[in-house]
Amino acid sequence: MINVIGILSNGIYSGIKNSGKPDLALIFSKVKANAVALFTKNKIKAAPVIISQKNIKNGKIQAVIINSGNANACTGERGMEDAISMANATARELNINPEDVVVASTGVIGQRLPIKKIENGIKILAKKIKRNGIKSAAKAITTTDTFSKYVETRIKLNNKSINLIGIAKGSGMIHPDLATMLVFIFTDINIRIDILKKATSEAVSESFNMITVDGDTSTNDMVLVLANGLAMKKCITNMDKNYYKFLNALKFVCLSLAKMIVADGEGATKFIEITVKGADSLKDAKLIAKSIAKSSLVKTAIFGEDPNWGRIMAAIGYSGAKIKENRISIWLCNVKVFDKSSTVDFDESELKKLMRNKNISILIDIGLNNNKATVWTCDLTPEYVKINSAYRT
Amino acid sequence: MINVIGILSNGIYSGIKNSGKPDLALIFSKVKANAVALFTKNKIKAAPVIISQKNIKNGKIQAVIINSGNANACTGERGMEDAISMANATARELNINPEDVVVASTGVIGQRLPIKKIENGIKILAKKIKRNGIKSAAKAITTTDTFSKYVETRIKLNNKSINLIGIAKGSGMIHPDLATMLVFIFTDINIRIDILKKATSEAVSESFNMITVDGDTSTNDMVLVLANGLAMKKCITNMDKNYYKFLNALKFVCLSLAKMIVADGEGATKFIEITVKGADSLKDAKLIAKSIAKSSLVKTAIFGEDPNWGRIMAAIGYSGAKIKENRISIWLCNVKVFDKSSTVDFDESELKKLMRNKNISILIDIGLNNNKATVWTCDLTPEYVKINSAYRT
Repeated sequence: MINVIGILSNGIYSGIKNSGKPDLALIFSKVKANAVALFTKNKIKAAPVIISQKNIKNGKIQAVIINSGNANACTGERGMEDAISMANATARELNINPEDVVVASTGVIGQRLPIKKIENGIKILAKKIKRNGIKSAAKAITTTDTFSKYVETRIKLNNKSINLIGIAKGSGMIHPDLATMLVFIFTDINIRIDILKKATSEAVSESFNMITVDGDTSTNDMVLVLANGLAMKKCITNMDKNYYKFLNALKFVCLSLAKMIVADGEGATKFIEITVKGADSLKDAKLIAKSIAKSSLVKTAIFGEDPNWGRIMAAIGYSGAKIKENRISIWLCNVKVFDKSSTVDFDESELKKLMRNKNISILIDIGLNNNKATVWTCDLTPEYVKINSAYRT
Repeated sequence: MINVIGILSNGIYSGIKNSGKPDLALIFSKVKANAVALFTKNKIKAAPVIISQKNIKNGKIQAVIINSGNANACTGERGMEDAISMANATARELNINPEDVVVASTGVIGQRLPIKKIENGIKILAKKIKRNGIKSAAKAITTTDTFSKYVETRIKLNNKSINLIGIAKGSGMIHPDLATMLVFIFTDINIRIDILKKATSEAVSESFNMITVDGDTSTNDMVLVLANGLAMKKCITNMDKNYYKFLNALKFVCLSLAKMIVADGEGATKFIEITVKGADSLKDAKLIAKSIAKSSLVKTAIFGEDPNWGRIMAAIGYSGAKIKENRISIWLCNVKVFDKSSTVDFDESELKKLMRNKNISILIDIGLNNNKATVWTCDLTPEYVKINSAYRT
């Protein structure tokens, strides 16, 4: 396990969850870090999202406080007060400015936070943060996750080791009312804020923005990248060789976490990779891939291990993208099932056997141009419905 | 049971379905009828859709031939030839022009029609059509429907009786690869084609365009209205009192059939009516209502009889419509659960009892303006997943 220089963290149980499992995490950087965050596009934003958006505006953050078990969403003015109290308590205990704190909450919507318990928890947690506490933090931000999500990588820039660590919580988009996806990535690279923004935006667009479980968007989603610069003196200020080395490392961290989120989709039995090539534009490639990934009928067919490619065709057709039916080809688990407007005479029983694997690939060639996109999703199962119908009860 | 003057119809088994159930229907008007049709917006269109779009262009149709059990979609040029053969055989037996025939197919995608069996079936069926054969036709167009869908109504215009009959097949949008929704409405009213188009468009926008089961769009959807004019001499040529009487009757027929389709949603245990009022525009009202209706999380919560209104809030937030969180109120089964940014202290166990009913109502007041829309949908159940994962196997 690696460490990011100057990062201290930990996770504890503060009394929010009935289960008694860890529910409060703190990440602290010894110096203010350059910070970039992407927040949910849902117009109903949880209170902590609103506070964090304000605090990150100047591009500097020194601490992140996260609770699980309660989303602090749709809680009105009192919810805003509670989110501010979390930032204030964190700042007080760490002797930093409240404006340098990001606050995140995840859990059920519409219930007030037990703020006294959390404030007390912050007091304890601030004394417990340590160099190798990040896996405890990763555990404390989970809700219905079946495993905690952690990834690390190290690159060499001018002979200096640069460390990146990412943690995430989420089961794809299947729990929007559980404030689905939280991602925190931190690194000791020294990089100017505008260049960091560029890298983050590119890495997220190819990873977290390309996964879906059920198409819902949470009120609390957040991806945060902190770069505190402690591993190197010279700052990266343009898109040089070092920038691209970092970008690749950041992409690796984002994509690894994104795939873990999909693999942990509740009730999921399959991990599905959908690649669309030959699309008229990159936008069309994404539209088509996401249209297939969101189709309940495609997802149930894959759960049933049924090579029902007609459902894929229907989803391509209603995606809104430019297509010509007589140019399209489809491969399911690397077996061609449709070739430019005519059915292929494939061995169905052989294909059914291939579909028993956990990993399912769908490849579409739109046959119009050179644009390509990949999305990841999971199947739709009776277990998903059971879990989500019984969640609060 | 009423009859539409000059309309003869029937349904038989022609050998398409393995089950031996009726699979071929024919509707014939003794004179050419003014005809309006709305087709699927899916860019992958089945062969019969393409033929029918061509044939209806001049606004005149005399016969409709429909098979179930096979969608004749994604079947390339041979599929086009088969659809043309169906029109030709129908025209030959009825001694009319092939250009005056609408062809519709519904069933599995990507398999060629057993065209010889169908041509033979048309020969038999053309001799069996009769005044009161419409309920047999309604039966022959179903696939996975658990009941056949028929509605009739009669209005008086200038002391003349005008008859309307509608039949439909479909379980909402849950079977796009089964070529989901087919609707055939016929009437003996005498109405000019442009006025009929106007009425059809308005009636469909408030009925078939406002239902959803799983958000997929079929390759074969079609709503067809035939008006043969045999019940009256004087033609309706403007939007007078008689027009509005007819429009109301047409709306009644469309809405009744639309609700039947939702109620027959496979695996459904609940019929859900979602009304959004106070929206900034009619477009926004529809966006919000459909966003809620399509949310797997709202639908699973209702299956679980769980008053989890946070999921409704999340769906409002990502709908794309203009909203202000502190103006929104939500009622679930007529119980207020959220009031302008604050949770209401409602009796949860009482509300859970209300949610045991089959009919569930959701009312949202967006609090911005005066625009209103209603959509209908059903819940998402483990049975839905089971049916759709095992459908072809």
